[in-house]
Amino acid sequence: MAMQSVMPTSEIPQPLAITMGDAAGIGPEIIAMAMRQEPQVMRGCFVAGDVETLRRAASVVTPPGRPALPIAVITTPEQVQSLPPRCMGVLQVADPLPLVPWGKVSKQAGAFAGQCVLWAADAALRGHIGALVTAPLHKEALSAAGAPYDAFPGHTEMLQYQAARHLGKTVHELPVRMMLANDELRTVLVSIHVSLRQAIEAVTFATVLETLSITHSALSRILGRAPRMGVAGLNPHAGEGGLFGREEMDLIAPAVRAAQAQGCLVSGPLAPDTVFMRARNTPDKPGEFDVVVAMYHDQGLIPVKYLGVEKGVNVTLGLPLVRTSPDHGTAFDIAGTGKADASSLLEAVRMARALSQDSVDY
Amino acid sequence: MAMQSVMPTSEIPQPLAITMGDAAGIGPEIIAMAMRQEPQVMRGCFVAGDVETLRRAASVVTPPGRPALPIAVITTPEQVQSLPPRCMGVLQVADPLPLVPWGKVSKQAGAFAGQCVLWAADAALRGHIGALVTAPLHKEALSAAGAPYDAFPGHTEMLQYQAARHLGKTVHELPVRMMLANDELRTVLVSIHVSLRQAIEAVTFATVLETLSITHSALSRILGRAPRMGVAGLNPHAGEGGLFGREEMDLIAPAVRAAQAQGCLVSGPLAPDTVFMRARNTPDKPGEFDVVVAMYHDQGLIPVKYLGVEKGVNVTLGLPLVRTSPDHGTAFDIAGTGKADASSLLEAVRMARALSQDSVDY
Repeated sequence: MAMQSVMPTSEIPQPLAITMGDAAGIGPEIIAMAMRQEPQVMRGCFVAGDVETLRRAASVVTPPGRPALPIAVITTPEQVQSLPPRCMGVLQVADPLPLVPWGKVSKQAGAFAGQCVLWAADAALRGHIGALVTAPLHKEALSAAGAPYDAFPGHTEMLQYQAARHLGKTVHELPVRMMLANDELRTVLVSIHVSLRQAIEAVTFATVLETLSITHSALSRILGRAPRMGVAGLNPHAGEGGLFGREEMDLIAPAVRAAQAQGCLVSGPLAPDTVFMRARNTPDKPGEFDVVVAMYHDQGLIPVKYLGVEKGVNVTLGLPLVRTSPDHGTAFDIAGTGKADASSLLEAVRMARALSQDSVDY
Repeated sequence: MAMQSVMPTSEIPQPLAITMGDAAGIGPEIIAMAMRQEPQVMRGCFVAGDVETLRRAASVVTPPGRPALPIAVITTPEQVQSLPPRCMGVLQVADPLPLVPWGKVSKQAGAFAGQCVLWAADAALRGHIGALVTAPLHKEALSAAGAPYDAFPGHTEMLQYQAARHLGKTVHELPVRMMLANDELRTVLVSIHVSLRQAIEAVTFATVLETLSITHSALSRILGRAPRMGVAGLNPHAGEGGLFGREEMDLIAPAVRAAQAQGCLVSGPLAPDTVFMRARNTPDKPGEFDVVVAMYHDQGLIPVKYLGVEKGVNVTLGLPLVRTSPDHGTAFDIAGTGKADASSLLEAVRMARALSQDSVDY
């Protein structure tokens, strides 16, 4: 199920931007760590960020007595293609950011992180980069940063906003969904950063059908065939025939039937407490589904994260750009210590490459 | 973390009742299978059920050419103690049940299953048995069975009703909670068989504090020390400081502080999507918590079931009796085929034994 790049190693890959994330978190140091540990994977990747913040990050991950990772300041994405290996290309996307303390909410860091994302989304939409991989930002810092950043609960909404602007559409006309994936399980969420009360209201015939359509299209591209989709119910036991809620009968089942009528391979609504176990794909037991469509954030994220967050990747589906991200946060408690793990970022880079290979008309 | 019985094998254990569950499901055959596979574990266990239904189940699990498990009809629990090994003691708790077809909802089977549970709860409350282990019943059959069974969404409510009656209290005065446990993870749920909308309403200062108190008391008995409790939030990211819901700030955090003031070891509210991963206890990584208090059914059950339901055990906390059950349903699709797995039932018997050893004043 792991998706590896099919890129011939002799070809120069399209430039890929990694947004720095919140400067007070682990984003900058996991980028530096990935560049140091896996130069082949990171070939063609540059950082959309702040040079001095990344220089500090490079020093954090440098073992004693070893030279720090050199940094090359670039001004256009394609310049990354002429950099030597083990050299971190950085494109300074805004005025230099004064160094911020690690592990503290900073409105300057929040605003800078937001600028990086908007810049990279725009570059992807214009075709200047093949994909973007986003290091974690801190939502409180983003919220503290003021307009326009405080209007966005997270990355996904920023990307959607930028894409809608680029296409001359409204955000409403450009629905997106978050997919979380690891080696065993993929899940796509009907809603993300809203309260559980609002998440229940967000489960409608239209949103479930839209989620199924977006998932079918995106996974068909990734798998090269129609994905087998399992749909979780909203209520315990998927409502148990109406005993514990009617959303399954009134909204979810009709959406599943409508998707089936459109040719999707979809089953459900299924009991939420076992559908993820049934979809889990291991060497011993192939999963029954290629992806589980989850009705709300924690329904999908609890099982994806249960075995550890090191390898989880977040993919935004439905946009005219390729964006992946590691499946963890800023980890303020260990920022600046060099203890963070770059595995999830590296997986996100691999998946971004795999998705962008044939994404000319994505 | 697995709790094994500390009972000396020379001692005759207290009689333990296994309720038959829905006759159309896998309950009867997993009981027969457990008796055949693990006679030592099942020593002192008898079935509260229907003799002919269990005879049919015994034949289902008999390999070709081998003698069927003999059945001994008993009329009082203590008679099980004089039965030879590999002999299934059955106490006929009500008028014989005509054989019902496998895999079909039957109101007769629903009513009979309900009678078994009410009988066994009463026997436990009177001290005639040490504990009860309940095989799965089918909620639609229970609902079709009419009064009084259709008033109970599941086992837990029946036990609570019977215990309240026994103590001359109201059900309201006898709060219970469901704990799900496997080798890696324990979780206790604030609410169970209600819609997700109702589950949100069920999260209050009082219900969360009550859940923490019940969990602290019960786990202190099981572990011999105060349990380290991790409390999940209700909303994504535990509300992220009020951005995605205020239940954490207004209800859950105050309940956690109140429990801390009572001497409980409790942390939270924590992000729901990572608290289970943090509590996961493996040989490589000890869990940060002994138990996670979950705000609703699927929040807790998705991670407990994710690695497979074979070993999960359900324990009812807060009652003046010991009750455990396997963590799976009636599996109508495979009932009567002998393909069901008795592992979870066997774990439930082991845990019931461990809990009932010192339960004189439970």
